[in-house]
Amino acid sequence: MEIKEFYDYCREIASYGSAAALVEWDMRTKMPPKAASDRSIVAGKLGRTAFEMSTSPRMAAFVEYFNRPAVNKQLSDVDRRNVELETKRYRKISAIPAEKYEKFMVACSKGEYVWQEAKAKSDFAMFRPYLEEIVAYQKEFVEYYGYEQNRYDALLDDYEPSITTQDLKVIIDGLKSELVPFIRQLREQGTRPDTSCLTGTFDKAAQEQMSLDVLKTMTYDFEGGRIDETAHPFTTGIGFGDVRVTTHYYEHNIASALFSTMHEGGHALYEQGVSEAYRWMSIHRGASMGVHESQSRTWENLVGRSEAFWKYYYPRLQNRFPQFQNVALDDFYKAINVVEPSLIRIEADEVTYNLHIMLRFEMEEALINGRAQVAELPELWNAKVKEYLGIDVPDDAHGVLQDVHWASGLFGYFPSYMLGNLYAAQFFATARQEIPDLEEQIAAGNLGALREWQRSRIHQYGALYDPKDLVVRVTGKPLDYHYFMSEVKEKYSRIYGIVPPESK
Amino acid sequence: MEIKEFYDYCREIASYGSAAALVEWDMRTKMPPKAASDRSIVAGKLGRTAFEMSTSPRMAAFVEYFNRPAVNKQLSDVDRRNVELETKRYRKISAIPAEKYEKFMVACSKGEYVWQEAKAKSDFAMFRPYLEEIVAYQKEFVEYYGYEQNRYDALLDDYEPSITTQDLKVIIDGLKSELVPFIRQLREQGTRPDTSCLTGTFDKAAQEQMSLDVLKTMTYDFEGGRIDETAHPFTTGIGFGDVRVTTHYYEHNIASALFSTMHEGGHALYEQGVSEAYRWMSIHRGASMGVHESQSRTWENLVGRSEAFWKYYYPRLQNRFPQFQNVALDDFYKAINVVEPSLIRIEADEVTYNLHIMLRFEMEEALINGRAQVAELPELWNAKVKEYLGIDVPDDAHGVLQDVHWASGLFGYFPSYMLGNLYAAQFFATARQEIPDLEEQIAAGNLGALREWQRSRIHQYGALYDPKDLVVRVTGKPLDYHYFMSEVKEKYSRIYGIVPPESK
Repeated sequence: MEIKEFYDYCREIASYGSAAALVEWDMRTKMPPKAASDRSIVAGKLGRTAFEMSTSPRMAAFVEYFNRPAVNKQLSDVDRRNVELETKRYRKISAIPAEKYEKFMVACSKGEYVWQEAKAKSDFAMFRPYLEEIVAYQKEFVEYYGYEQNRYDALLDDYEPSITTQDLKVIIDGLKSELVPFIRQLREQGTRPDTSCLTGTFDKAAQEQMSLDVLKTMTYDFEGGRIDETAHPFTTGIGFGDVRVTTHYYEHNIASALFSTMHEGGHALYEQGVSEAYRWMSIHRGASMGVHESQSRTWENLVGRSEAFWKYYYPRLQNRFPQFQNVALDDFYKAINVVEPSLIRIEADEVTYNLHIMLRFEMEEALINGRAQVAELPELWNAKVKEYLGIDVPDDAHGVLQDVHWASGLFGYFPSYMLGNLYAAQFFATARQEIPDLEEQIAAGNLGALREWQRSRIHQYGALYDPKDLVVRVTGKPLDYHYFMSEVKEKYSRIYGIVPPESK
Repeated sequence: MEIKEFYDYCREIASYGSAAALVEWDMRTKMPPKAASDRSIVAGKLGRTAFEMSTSPRMAAFVEYFNRPAVNKQLSDVDRRNVELETKRYRKISAIPAEKYEKFMVACSKGEYVWQEAKAKSDFAMFRPYLEEIVAYQKEFVEYYGYEQNRYDALLDDYEPSITTQDLKVIIDGLKSELVPFIRQLREQGTRPDTSCLTGTFDKAAQEQMSLDVLKTMTYDFEGGRIDETAHPFTTGIGFGDVRVTTHYYEHNIASALFSTMHEGGHALYEQGVSEAYRWMSIHRGASMGVHESQSRTWENLVGRSEAFWKYYYPRLQNRFPQFQNVALDDFYKAINVVEPSLIRIEADEVTYNLHIMLRFEMEEALINGRAQVAELPELWNAKVKEYLGIDVPDDAHGVLQDVHWASGLFGYFPSYMLGNLYAAQFFATARQEIPDLEEQIAAGNLGALREWQRSRIHQYGALYDPKDLVVRVTGKPLDYHYFMSEVKEKYSRIYGIVPPESK
């Protein structure tokens, strides 16, 4: 058996995956409404075909052969890693009896459907039996997958391999103990920025031009991608040379398109930067969900909400939107960095965002380990929001029903968002060390300096390394939340005019 | 075996076909350039999957079972027709040994590639060996397919089932004997319209708005389709509820986008009008290439180049393009109806167009029957252009190398273009009888009157009927080229101010 046969087979699977990605991009950007129901059938068929090929007898034979110690040790690092990733996928999927997995998929599909209505009506009771069924499957699957210490590890592994529940608990306890009082200090002692300059009417065509221009400034490659409008912004790698971003324009909110575009652009730079030699391979993707999110957060927050970037870009924004002519750079900078405990995760600022993740993680982990029941979720949710963010949840639509993830069966996914923020800060601290004039480069509009650093240290490798190894390779140290905490304390103490608390 | 199983299987095939159609639409409209080579692999994989399923043992079993006389006669008309179409496809594909077909596909792929360069260099000798190989395959395939009277019948059948080579020869001999002298008469005795109003600069954004507006006026359903820009306009039915058109904008040529949009819109109205009950079925498409073309030609020429339409639409065009403010309606109408023997088929007017098809048909038919050789094609071509159109061919790029069809192995396709013009005239004559105030309706901008007639008489049936049966059902008579000839003689005699010749 030759490794080429394995790669040929993987390319066939990836062909269906690529077609499925295009169909989904189209469904969310271009498809006329009447096509929706038939197009779901097409998307489902393509997904099922790729899925079946990943667990076929053919793949079983590859997995068996290339994992034989004598064969495996002869493989190159790249080949071995591709075999490892496909083996992992094969074993995880094969662990679940096929008819159970089918039923789970149906439950999620119903769950999403009911969730939409339940959210609209703010009626958790309506959603509860569906969520109970989904959670029951997740608990059952965990037993099939197996785990060493904590049942939740088996789910986390799908999104953030090499990080354990125990690792997360340590991070979260430390982070929470610093974040919660810091946010209170900002609110009680700080001067809240005036955000009125971000309201008004912002011409849509000008916002479109701005999005194009921002992506160009970020060195996004339009020869290998494009930007379109959608309801919920996303990035999709349809294949080599085709990484598309989407954004959304609100006439009365310029910040939304601006930061969505930079966020998605950050994801896209990662995928555009993966080595061309890896095309069609399993490693032609990000190292993990968390590392992927770190790249989007870097561009959205560490660049997009920095003083350096706006030194360069603010005059350009003023040219496009005359209402900023009378707003000072510093006022604009502060306005886009307001910290505000809020109910909705996807609207949360850089500082409070992680608290939204922590409470979700804590509830997921308790559910999977049987220490909490679905019926208790609304009460648990509201109590945690009060404790961490200091605000009251008026109804479940603004609380436990706000996210689609659980309805879609995505348990173990939320922590990636938080890890993304932490990786981002740690990577950025290293970039600052290794590019001593990084701020000056950014302030001069040369964002290629950062991008090239990211490419050479992170992007090019795709999923060649586990995130745990990658972070050590790049920064010399394991993941450490203090990078994030110092970054945030220093920046927001200045903006809010308070004395920064001591670091723990 | 239940018919439902057959339909389920057909829907699976159609799912891959739908994905392939979307991938191709994207390649021609949205895809960033760097994705081109990998995306071809995806398109090829989807096409091959659908192809393999159409000739699989599973399909063989359906074909065998549902064609048993006792089973077949129990089927509904719709079921029987779907079985018939899939059976035909199965038998044609299965007739050719798989490895021969593969080699043919490779030859076509190389052929297209070389043709592009040969056309650019106007170098037929370069293309000749590739075309010889393709023609050799076509001649071989014809023997596998079998035929009753003329080898060419077996090829024609792919695009225009139920029309024979002999039928075509009769039509062409008749049509040519009237068209050639009529065109000479127009040139020698008529007054050529002044076309200067069609030159100038036409704002691209205004042309885009015009295209949207024209499609809306045609009652094209944007809830089930969209329009985009492309190099070579086309229409694609991606599935039920999704029939997309494309057009091309030239800043110095308004007629191009205008008539391309109406042409493609005509194709799209057909596909949008097929009965919803036929979704996912084999009959969810046009009755034939020729009937499809008749719908595009109806909207492009019989509506789009009519006095009635411009009575309604010209003030709207004038509002969009101020340069028409000083051009009288009649002058504009005449300008868009200039008749001009020309070298390039796709630029030909309504009157001379069929001559371009005739010469191609005559050469194809001679090639397949061994009465002509590939090496002779340039000479043959130039002689026929001189004879039929009265003009000299300066080089092969403007002659035998102008179309991609032969390089793609599409022998038997060209006649559909001519048949489309003939069907269109015959259908339209019936529409005029059955909607006595048709002209008034069009002149009042109510194009829905014609569209509803087309839908109820033609569109809704999809491919339920053979074109030969359809034309009799709709018009009460077999296909007759005199409808086209009278239409053209009457219209162009008026425009050119000549006494119309007697009809034969």
